[in-house]
Amino acid sequence: MTLNPLLFESTVRAALVEDFGRGGDITTQATIPPDRRATALLTAREGGVIAGLDVARGAFELVDPSVRFESRVSDGTAVEPGAALAQISGTAASLLTAERTALNFLSHLSGVASATAQIARAIAHTEARVCCTRKTTPGLRVLEKYAVRAGGGVNHRFGLDDAVLIKDNHIAVAGGITAALTSARDRVGHMVKIEIEVDTLEQLEEVLTVGADAVLLDNMAPEVLREAVALVDRRAITEASGRISSADARAVAEAGVDLISSGWLTHSAPILDIGLDIQIGAAAPLTSDQ
Amino acid sequence: MTLNPLLFESTVRAALVEDFGRGGDITTQATIPPDRRATALLTAREGGVIAGLDVARGAFELVDPSVRFESRVSDGTAVEPGAALAQISGTAASLLTAERTALNFLSHLSGVASATAQIARAIAHTEARVCCTRKTTPGLRVLEKYAVRAGGGVNHRFGLDDAVLIKDNHIAVAGGITAALTSARDRVGHMVKIEIEVDTLEQLEEVLTVGADAVLLDNMAPEVLREAVALVDRRAITEASGRISSADARAVAEAGVDLISSGWLTHSAPILDIGLDIQIGAAAPLTSDQ
Amino acid sequence: MTLNPLLFESTVRAALVEDFGRGGDITTQATIPPDRRATALLTAREGGVIAGLDVARGAFELVDPSVRFESRVSDGTAVEPGAALAQISGTAASLLTAERTALNFLSHLSGVASATAQIARAIAHTEARVCCTRKTTPGLRVLEKYAVRAGGGVNHRFGLDDAVLIKDNHIAVAGGITAALTSARDRVGHMVKIEIEVDTLEQLEEVLTVGADAVLLDNMAPEVLREAVALVDRRAITEASGRISSADARAVAEAGVDLISSGWLTHSAPILDIGLDIQIGAAAPLTSDQ
Amino acid sequence: MTLNPLLFESTVRAALVEDFGRGGDITTQATIPPDRRATALLTAREGGVIAGLDVARGAFELVDPSVRFESRVSDGTAVEPGAALAQISGTAASLLTAERTALNFLSHLSGVASATAQIARAIAHTEARVCCTRKTTPGLRVLEKYAVRAGGGVNHRFGLDDAVLIKDNHIAVAGGITAALTSARDRVGHMVKIEIEVDTLEQLEEVLTVGADAVLLDNMAPEVLREAVALVDRRAITEASGRISSADARAVAEAGVDLISSGWLTHSAPILDIGLDIQIGAAAPLTSDQ
Amino acid sequence: MTLNPLLFESTVRAALVEDFGRGGDITTQATIPPDRRATALLTAREGGVIAGLDVARGAFELVDPSVRFESRVSDGTAVEPGAALAQISGTAASLLTAERTALNFLSHLSGVASATAQIARAIAHTEARVCCTRKTTPGLRVLEKYAVRAGGGVNHRFGLDDAVLIKDNHIAVAGGITAALTSARDRVGHMVKIEIEVDTLEQLEEVLTVGADAVLLDNMAPEVLREAVALVDRRAITEASGRISSADARAVAEAGVDLISSGWLTHSAPILDIGLDIQIGAAAPLTSDQ
Amino acid sequence: MTLNPLLFESTVRAALVEDFGRGGDITTQATIPPDRRATALLTAREGGVIAGLDVARGAFELVDPSVRFESRVSDGTAVEPGAALAQISGTAASLLTAERTALNFLSHLSGVASATAQIARAIAHTEARVCCTRKTTPGLRVLEKYAVRAGGGVNHRFGLDDAVLIKDNHIAVAGGITAALTSARDRVGHMVKIEIEVDTLEQLEEVLTVGADAVLLDNMAPEVLREAVALVDRRAITEASGRISSADARAVAEAGVDLISSGWLTHSAPILDIGLDIQIGAAAPLTSDQ
Repeated sequence: MTLNPLLFESTVRAALVEDFGRGGDITTQATIPPDRRATALLTAREGGVIAGLDVARGAFELVDPSVRFESRVSDGTAVEPGAALAQISGTAASLLTAERTALNFLSHLSGVASATAQIARAIAHTEARVCCTRKTTPGLRVLEKYAVRAGGGVNHRFGLDDAVLIKDNHIAVAGGITAALTSARDRVGHMVKIEIEVDTLEQLEEVLTVGADAVLLDNMAPEVLREAVALVDRRAITEASGRISSADARAVAEAGVDLISSGWLTHSAPILDIGLDIQIGAAAPLTSDQ
Repeated sequence: MTLNPLLFESTVRAALVEDFGRGGDITTQATIPPDRRATALLTAREGGVIAGLDVARGAFELVDPSVRFESRVSDGTAVEPGAALAQISGTAASLLTAERTALNFLSHLSGVASATAQIARAIAHTEARVCCTRKTTPGLRVLEKYAVRAGGGVNHRFGLDDAVLIKDNHIAVAGGITAALTSARDRVGHMVKIEIEVDTLEQLEEVLTVGADAVLLDNMAPEVLREAVALVDRRAITEASGRISSADARAVAEAGVDLISSGWLTHSAPILDIGLDIQIGAAAPLTSDQ
Repeated sequence: MTLNPLLFESTVRAALVEDFGRGGDITTQATIPPDRRATALLTAREGGVIAGLDVARGAFELVDPSVRFESRVSDGTAVEPGAALAQISGTAASLLTAERTALNFLSHLSGVASATAQIARAIAHTEARVCCTRKTTPGLRVLEKYAVRAGGGVNHRFGLDDAVLIKDNHIAVAGGITAALTSARDRVGHMVKIEIEVDTLEQLEEVLTVGADAVLLDNMAPEVLREAVALVDRRAITEASGRISSADARAVAEAGVDLISSGWLTHSAPILDIGLDIQIGAAAPLTSDQ
Repeated sequence: MTLNPLLFESTVRAALVEDFGRGGDITTQATIPPDRRATALLTAREGGVIAGLDVARGAFELVDPSVRFESRVSDGTAVEPGAALAQISGTAASLLTAERTALNFLSHLSGVASATAQIARAIAHTEARVCCTRKTTPGLRVLEKYAVRAGGGVNHRFGLDDAVLIKDNHIAVAGGITAALTSARDRVGHMVKIEIEVDTLEQLEEVLTVGADAVLLDNMAPEVLREAVALVDRRAITEASGRISSADARAVAEAGVDLISSGWLTHSAPILDIGLDIQIGAAAPLTSDQ
Repeated sequence: MTLNPLLFESTVRAALVEDFGRGGDITTQATIPPDRRATALLTAREGGVIAGLDVARGAFELVDPSVRFESRVSDGTAVEPGAALAQISGTAASLLTAERTALNFLSHLSGVASATAQIARAIAHTEARVCCTRKTTPGLRVLEKYAVRAGGGVNHRFGLDDAVLIKDNHIAVAGGITAALTSARDRVGHMVKIEIEVDTLEQLEEVLTVGADAVLLDNMAPEVLREAVALVDRRAITEASGRISSADARAVAEAGVDLISSGWLTHSAPILDIGLDIQIGAAAPLTSDQ
Repeated sequence: MTLNPLLFESTVRAALVEDFGRGGDITTQATIPPDRRATALLTAREGGVIAGLDVARGAFELVDPSVRFESRVSDGTAVEPGAALAQISGTAASLLTAERTALNFLSHLSGVASATAQIARAIAHTEARVCCTRKTTPGLRVLEKYAVRAGGGVNHRFGLDDAVLIKDNHIAVAGGITAALTSARDRVGHMVKIEIEVDTLEQLEEVLTVGADAVLLDNMAPEVLREAVALVDRRAITEASGRISSADARAVAEAGVDLISSGWLTHSAPILDIGLDIQIGAAAPLTSDQ
């Protein structure tokens, strides 16, 4: 899995600028001979699914284009504790300067991927898939959505503009489900899908009468979900939501829904602990091509 | 507690642009009459410490300058579940469009503040204070550092450039603690503090001989920390680090250190659940001054 | 019809900066007394459909926040030659400085809206609608898509990421229609629609066997389109494309397709001629509230 | 003809970001094997003058620095229908992803160049030259001015700040031609030329008495222009304007003016139809240096 | 004299962001009660010509829109030591936070204006005027050019693109003065003036034969300049350059040149010493409208 | 001495964009054959200390990545008049286009370094060091602070956020020295140093009772400074300030202070005169690798 750098390079640059401030890495400048070379290993300190290796690479290369970053695994790989993720070589100074920014991205994104994978595994025996929401960390939506895919999940809409999701408040103002759905259909482009939230089977029936591409079944118990799925009968995509923990996910998935969505994947998943182990080499004159 | 908007306004604008994409809120446009007015309450769904109300206000005002946002509490306040945090009024469309971005900031920052407060409370009977690290979410360091302060913690350095922190790798390359400290002192400005990481009491003794503003006591058991604190004898600030959970913090603090630092506060604290409850008003012509 | 300023304000600011260069409006500074006030009318010099009044307003207000801009019509209105579109008052200097940038946006967007309306009117007796493509002017996609809607058209996808459109080259590489469609379905999110281009009825049959949300019927004569529509039989949205002029559109629409798409609307429509007529007032001291 | 990339690179990057949105090219990602290589030809589908090949190159290289773009002609070349403009090789995925953005620039700029060339050819037997105005597409002024030069035209001022152009409104406020010209001369730098608009020969006489670098002869019939040119007698540059079509241009030029200016070149010229023909190669492992 | 904020607002914002870093004004936050109000006077500590009051105002207003900034003089005014330039009122915190950025702009720009005025006064009895060059401080060209005008000078070109200045190196490569001038005339737009540098009277004669809008008479003694001026005989603008100190300027001006240009005005003029005297008021609750 | 390009590249790019405007280097384009190659020497026209060679390199490389820039000295070197600083080779056009921007940076920064070195030499026989302030040129703080270091000085704080400096106004509002210092200590992070300004020995005594990291001894005569230093007795860093000229610096330094700070270094130091001498080569086809 890869992502075109145009989608994240400015984010990485901004993060480095945030860390550099106005003076750059004064500790390294004040303690490390600039010509000392080093090799480092990015290592998973715990097991999980990796996402963000190219983003980490970007951090090292923006600090110093002569750094070499060789991935040992690819994004989306499940690794054991202790697994080597990438080998990085360059001046010790460059490695130390880029380390924290690279790790902040990589451990956060791998945390999202690992959380996704945990639910994905719990429901792997069903047709259901886990998906994310717009409850993402400000500024990181593109990367977090990518991490969800790396963890085996699928993406819901990326923003307010690429799909319609009619929630309870929209329904209330529009004057009911039928009015809201009809109004939406008339006014959005033909390439845009329409989803609507329902809390009860009665609402669901009204939706099915009018028609929608997907229904968000909010906070329903597994047995109600099962009824809902039967009622829908493949006429729309079914998505269950409402704080579904990894423990609950199995029962929800077995109810037959197509998707289980979770904001937790992107807003509250803890990081995956990843470290950088540096082996400092001997001081040596840089070769002429650097 | 407040933060000058110059420090976060462009971050909020970028988050809205991220959510708007190229088309803006097509659901609201397609279902909500533009002149319908509404009032909304930001409500804590669980107890915690609030941070980011001005950031949330910024999201609403950037979407629509005519929205009125009245805070009911101030950042740094500990609230009970169900507490009203702010009342917001404007067109229903504007409230719905800004809602998710505002909540993404507010719930994340309040999560950080609440996690900080949890440790701060656990050590409140000691002189120790909880502090954060550079393990922050890329792009959000200013805001997360602010949230830590709102939660009763203190800030460590904001980036690579505002303080020296000599870690084990720097020591190794520089040729030892004495060499690293001496080199750093000679080369950084007089307004910059110098901290150095030590893993053993022997290292600590070497540091104290040379002198440093602060020592990072890494992964030491409470009883070793107690010895370290005695050895330092107020000649330097003492900071304990190394995955100190809220449960461990009490014993660590009682060992007498000045600071307990934790990356978890900013990289892994779950959000504080905050919701927006909207009361849609009757459709009404906008008054002339809007 | 309106568009949230977050979607275009930075575009207008950039256009003014482009026109100001490093010295601003040196002609006005060198010839116009700064306290002279004026009133101006934006007037359509030819008939058409208006789009971009809020964008024009933005240009005047960014040059001088004290300028008052009062629209006489709203975007999407069809006007006769000579129709007054807006009245603007402020200092003569500010009006003259903002004039060209405001007109460059307004006349271009109204040109797109008018071109769209011309086709829309030609097919108004059918169920077909006219829609735009990604063949837009670089930097203006959001605004041109808006102008198409103002002209009575609908929008196709806004970019590479909000819908799948499988073209002949994709089909060739993927190893055929079935392979391409199957691969796409497996790999894109559930809120994303899939469209595929076909040149022949045989290809269309293969598409219908696998299933797609929409089919792009490329360069087919009206009678072939009619067959295609019958073949589809409402199982997918039908879109006719291929340099369909406003003259051809009627026959194409009567073939029963849902959509007629045209790149010409956004890449080649001539502007709608709109002018600014200024009535310069007497020199007067600015009132105290300005 | 070339243009330094500093003058357009950020414009191309912004156009790609506009097309990529938050997810990039999901169609290509979902259907094209990433290691498949391809070669493509940029081909003129109709005859015209080419402008923007380096801009197109920029689009491909920003999507993927390993793409090779070899121009077959240079900007400013008049080509026949079917002419190959450039050969591009790289992964099929990169070519398909950059295609639309590259073509949107190239076909628009070649449209401007071709429109310019059409008038330039019509007046080639005279000393007159065709020139553009500030009626450009917002955000594209640098590129459109370049395209006019590629088409054999010359540039008028690039913005409000690099030359003075006193129009009827300025004259009205300044209290007449003499007052306006005198005021302008006193207040602008010595490296700035001054032009003034006149509608009648009487006005022209007043201008010549005071002196100006250039006169804009607005909406005058060819025979009046001839008188004006005689009156000026080389004491100023003469520029004819006022919706001069390519058909009228000959007579206007033969009246002896130095310049014929036209907003139509940049605001209403249709694109030159240019296509990308892709030949997909066999899947092959990328060579090690990519 | 004023400058439209679009020409400098982003520069002021960037300067504040540079000063704020990631934490803002921690001194003020830690020592000043946020509701304390104050009034301050901007005072000239030495005599000179003022430039940049609106830029200073911008700094205060960006820090806090509720600050009131009332200018007591306008840009371009010559003031005595001790003169009050503006009165500013708001919270003490906001005044202290914006003070340094506002003064950095105002004292620098007033330094440029004062240096310009010094030369302008020395040559006031002649027709000559002092003008600046492109030797400006990176990022501040618009503002420094403005300050030169405020000081009574005139502006040379603003950049590489708004006028032609053929220097010795261009002449050498082009194959001589005649070749260079001819080539330039053929290739630049009709609204662009052409200036050429000459070191000797022989070169000057060649220039006059071909024709140019202006001649740069480089490093000529006053008596040679006098000859040059006679030779030119009003056929071109004459500009003397070459490290002309304020002491030399009189003799140079009396030689009859139109312009004396000086890089020193913008790259080496010392600041004008301006201070901010704050009178802190009593702590008071903010009134409701703030 | 070097500076990571992330800290200045966008500043150099912005300066080039400022100089290029919308048309780039029209003189060079109109007079110089594009394939002519040249070699140039950056040469010090007067003696001084060099700073900014990598910034100058950046200007050339951004204009044309194929330019080769080889430094002959490194930043921080004291050079004699006539010293060659760097050799640059590439097309004549690229060298001429980048020349002014490169020189504007290099001569300004070398001016700052040389001014710093002048004071540094005057006090070299003491322990005192010269340091800069926040009185820097807007937008250039990072580079000017670097130039101060290159000149042998040290840096004071980089902005409002990386150290506390309590001035007389803060003291007045806070209610005195003790109140201000106590409040500051309680409220800033442990890695932040606190300095306070005093005008009298009485104030100094109060400071020493409470404790501070550094004291700013403002406008004290050398003999008073001597007393102050004795009073402090190494309990705080001592910094003398107040328009200390290079002539005064010796006496001030001999009074025993640790630091002499000067705003003049960054706001008023004249440039170091540096020129570019170009040797134009024969026209030759570019070699294939360019």
